[in-house]
Amino acid sequence: MSTAAPILLTPGPLTTSARTRQAMMVDWGSWDDRFNQLTASLCEQLLAIINGSNSHYCVPLQGSGTFAVEAAIGTLVPRDGKVLVLINGAYGKRLAKICEVLGRRFSTFETAEDEPTTASDVDRLLSADPGITHVALIHCETSTGILNPLPEIANVIAQHGKRLIIDAMSSFGALPIDARQVPFDALIAASGKCLEGVPGMGFVFARKEALSNAAGNCHSLAMDLHDQHTYMVKTGQWRFTPPTHVVAALHEALLQYNEEGGLPARHQRYANNCQALLDGMASLGIRSFLPEAIQAPIIVTFHAPKDPRYQFKDFYERVKAKGFILYPGKLTQVETFRVGCIGHVNQAEMRAAVNAVAEVLQEMEVLEI
Amino acid sequence: MSTAAPILLTPGPLTTSARTRQAMMVDWGSWDDRFNQLTASLCEQLLAIINGSNSHYCVPLQGSGTFAVEAAIGTLVPRDGKVLVLINGAYGKRLAKICEVLGRRFSTFETAEDEPTTASDVDRLLSADPGITHVALIHCETSTGILNPLPEIANVIAQHGKRLIIDAMSSFGALPIDARQVPFDALIAASGKCLEGVPGMGFVFARKEALSNAAGNCHSLAMDLHDQHTYMVKTGQWRFTPPTHVVAALHEALLQYNEEGGLPARHQRYANNCQALLDGMASLGIRSFLPEAIQAPIIVTFHAPKDPRYQFKDFYERVKAKGFILYPGKLTQVETFRVGCIGHVNQAEMRAAVNAVAEVLQEMEVLEI
Repeated sequence: MSTAAPILLTPGPLTTSARTRQAMMVDWGSWDDRFNQLTASLCEQLLAIINGSNSHYCVPLQGSGTFAVEAAIGTLVPRDGKVLVLINGAYGKRLAKICEVLGRRFSTFETAEDEPTTASDVDRLLSADPGITHVALIHCETSTGILNPLPEIANVIAQHGKRLIIDAMSSFGALPIDARQVPFDALIAASGKCLEGVPGMGFVFARKEALSNAAGNCHSLAMDLHDQHTYMVKTGQWRFTPPTHVVAALHEALLQYNEEGGLPARHQRYANNCQALLDGMASLGIRSFLPEAIQAPIIVTFHAPKDPRYQFKDFYERVKAKGFILYPGKLTQVETFRVGCIGHVNQAEMRAAVNAVAEVLQEMEVLEI
Repeated sequence: MSTAAPILLTPGPLTTSARTRQAMMVDWGSWDDRFNQLTASLCEQLLAIINGSNSHYCVPLQGSGTFAVEAAIGTLVPRDGKVLVLINGAYGKRLAKICEVLGRRFSTFETAEDEPTTASDVDRLLSADPGITHVALIHCETSTGILNPLPEIANVIAQHGKRLIIDAMSSFGALPIDARQVPFDALIAASGKCLEGVPGMGFVFARKEALSNAAGNCHSLAMDLHDQHTYMVKTGQWRFTPPTHVVAALHEALLQYNEEGGLPARHQRYANNCQALLDGMASLGIRSFLPEAIQAPIIVTFHAPKDPRYQFKDFYERVKAKGFILYPGKLTQVETFRVGCIGHVNQAEMRAAVNAVAEVLQEMEVLEI
């Protein structure tokens, strides 16, 4: 695959295709019909990925994925609502922080970073506190790469008559989520993840009725998804200046996504990448942090070598000099590093990255793995 | 100048140079040192434009310019503060709307769209209401292109011991603002305006002491400029995923800005563009809405022809077919259209645009101008 060196093996921004980047070589007028058509086509293609066009609106938003997560909570949770936040990593903690800053009441349920939240946990928690109106969940927690069992949790929440907000930042587009089967009020993702666009915008799939009832909820003008959607329906335009080049790149990335074979093909390529990475690293004696059963094929956390000659910064710079950008660990208790499986890369790149790691460990004289 | 057709004569997104767009052909790791250096260099160059490195911090923010304006108000106006909003167009009204949504107390002072706010107005208003803590002003109001007298207003505000927040979205980089002479707590602009980057990020110059005292003010996690700045100082990184390609494009655009001769050269080119436009349109009998004394060389509002055969949509599409994208009017009382003078264009393009307008009016058989 043709890529700009070095190759990013990170959870986004990631390596994009030359064709996607090439789409940014045109300046678009944000008021122009052709750009409005681009936005409309983008939203339509995004909704198709979750089979959501009957049930949900797609509301794009300027900024990073976190802006879209905050916008979803601020817009869809009424000011007197209460959110149960399910946590097993840094992004779950961020959900709680957003609720705190926005002044929404919330409670948290935290499991260890290698332990998925279960549907029975959620069942018990909702039974214990009828005041909860919404549950917020990270689908695939980028801190470790752990996958939480979304369909089971979503069903329990629906049985309790509560609302679900899903941060699917690092899973959307690669792991299947079907809006006809998984009930949710909001699912949030961003341009620069498994769709392989460039970073700069997020989007929220909001259940139609929930969004229609959300006027006046939001704490922010810029992040008000109800306003953003209403304006877009009326004018075809973004409410404030869109990141035109980022939008064009995502549109082009989606065309390639569909040409590749859509979600099944994207999932398979990432699963192959992940397997090649796991096998290669295992052959070097490097152990992954999570058991395979709960490891999503998005990003893998590896235990750092125990050898005192191993220093992450040195390791990182040497691997980078060989053409691959890795990612630091995000665990407080254990020393780790992470390697992404996503982006415009395939098994050949993953194997080459493993070879680079092997060479670097040899150069560093790291013996004790 | 080499540009991607059609040429955007709009207030941003605007026409960028091929070199600026080319800078987006690389994928950057947001955690990588090289990208951190890009961000640091960007902030340094931005501060230099206002001679602000001693007095102000530059805090970049993901999203459109409006996100940065909301972030500045939310971060720098304490929850018990009160904002006097000076209005003579749509962007002034947006400042008031932001205060309303954020729950900050505010009062407004509105003049006609062709009437600048004066320092004596502000003097009188501040004397009449000692409860006001901050004044918010649009430097150049994009609705019409009117220039408000910033230095005089800033001095009066300082004499009253109050704080000034300036939305300089469409003026920054082209019209001189010197932080050593004009006292302000915040000045806000964005990537896709007179610096000729692509849209997708804004930035706030915040007075150092004001920002340091702003912990806990903000209504939003993502828009908290105190947090954003604190994290960036500590790590060199953006707090949440940056729009890496947009950052790289702005950095490249700033190199070209400095090569061209910095602010004086940029101002002169835009002034020449504006004059060529005004002269050309006058030769067609098309009148500009503002008198020249208060017309900033950024965007010009023209009266629409009176002839019933003139319809903006038709006019717009025909001019676009000849290679130029114009901008609709934004006045409620008078029918107008707008033409931007900014972007990677010079007098030759402005004259060609006027020729295109002349041909189109002839095609449309518009006689009564």
